[in-house]
Amino acid sequence: MVQVRMESNILGANELMARKNRNIFSREGVLAVNLMSSPGSGKTTILEKTIESLNGKIKIGVIEGDLYTDQDAKRIEQKGVHVIQINTEGTCHLDAGMVGKTFEQIPLNELDIVFIENVGNLVCPAEFDLGEDLKVVVISTAEGNDKPLKYPLIFREAKAVLVNKIDLLPYTDFSLEKIKEDIAGINPSAEIFLVSGRTGQGINEWNQWLLEEVKNKKS
Amino acid sequence: MVQVRMESNILGANELMARKNRNIFSREGVLAVNLMSSPGSGKTTILEKTIESLNGKIKIGVIEGDLYTDQDAKRIEQKGVHVIQINTEGTCHLDAGMVGKTFEQIPLNELDIVFIENVGNLVCPAEFDLGEDLKVVVISTAEGNDKPLKYPLIFREAKAVLVNKIDLLPYTDFSLEKIKEDIAGINPSAEIFLVSGRTGQGINEWNQWLLEEVKNKKS
Repeated sequence: MVQVRMESNILGANELMARKNRNIFSREGVLAVNLMSSPGSGKTTILEKTIESLNGKIKIGVIEGDLYTDQDAKRIEQKGVHVIQINTEGTCHLDAGMVGKTFEQIPLNELDIVFIENVGNLVCPAEFDLGEDLKVVVISTAEGNDKPLKYPLIFREAKAVLVNKIDLLPYTDFSLEKIKEDIAGINPSAEIFLVSGRTGQGINEWNQWLLEEVKNKKS
Repeated sequence: MVQVRMESNILGANELMARKNRNIFSREGVLAVNLMSSPGSGKTTILEKTIESLNGKIKIGVIEGDLYTDQDAKRIEQKGVHVIQINTEGTCHLDAGMVGKTFEQIPLNELDIVFIENVGNLVCPAEFDLGEDLKVVVISTAEGNDKPLKYPLIFREAKAVLVNKIDLLPYTDFSLEKIKEDIAGINPSAEIFLVSGRTGQGINEWNQWLLEEVKNKKS
């Protein structure tokens, strides 16, 4: 009973901070994308490929969430975009306060899009609004078909789902038909992109969709 | 500040319950194995293969942790062993209290080993002692090499690490040499098993090790 009340307080405080972040993203005209997945689904590799393809067309920033290390931030930095590292020091998700604290170090007014790469976790990040414009979930064909039914909240909240490691499809028992059906059952309006961060397959379609979202945000 | 104190209280209460569970496992002479991984690393498939191989040799029970569904429990039940489902209703990990509540429904005194399949999550489950005898972490070759360095706590606490989906190795950039090196850097005494839940490769070595642990527990 006590635990439930404490969680409500924490989530309530988070809502206030998320609203503040959302106002700032709006004022600066920057699209904020909260990227979430299990550990090892390939968020960072997809980000690398996305930056390679969109850099020059739009101005990109990245907020990297990680428990302790800056491994992912270092990978992204090599692509020549603004990167800010958040270390959660063991906390299993980003929250709106952590994201808000980065705004002093990231020139939002110069950017068109900011990706927020969340901690690798299919459960906790879904509960914390960061003030983002849209949530994107990445799953990999190697993870099996049961993820949408087992972790429904994160799929319900996603505007797009990237089915990654499509190059591994022939070597797994993963069914594209079933995953599309299960995602549609939970969230009929979710866009689904079949991609491979490794080979680049499908990255172009996903990026065209992102460019459209950036344009909508600015209009 | 307040949040940290609350967490300490929750963890403190968990420690008491974990001690109680540990005493019960000892009294009943049953080895309790806490199985943890990211979503989709293959815990359930490994359990299925392990039960097929060990059933008849030792008496097996399974406590299945899941957010909402009983998909995994149904799979395990078909193998003809005792299964108890815990639904955490959105909580990102099992705790000792949840596990203790199952003891009325599971005949521990008739069992040699009880597997506790935790919620798919590499972060939160590592913080909650369930009173188990040993923790085992499963990672998949499709998840990339950076997991031990990015999620050190769970690897530090593991007595064994199963590197699963070894059949996908030729189609990924995963390095066995590096994973062994990184695990050894965090936890030099961890046993490492290379397995495939899908093909059965390496399951026998892992099961021989488990039988040895069961024997040690009883002696």
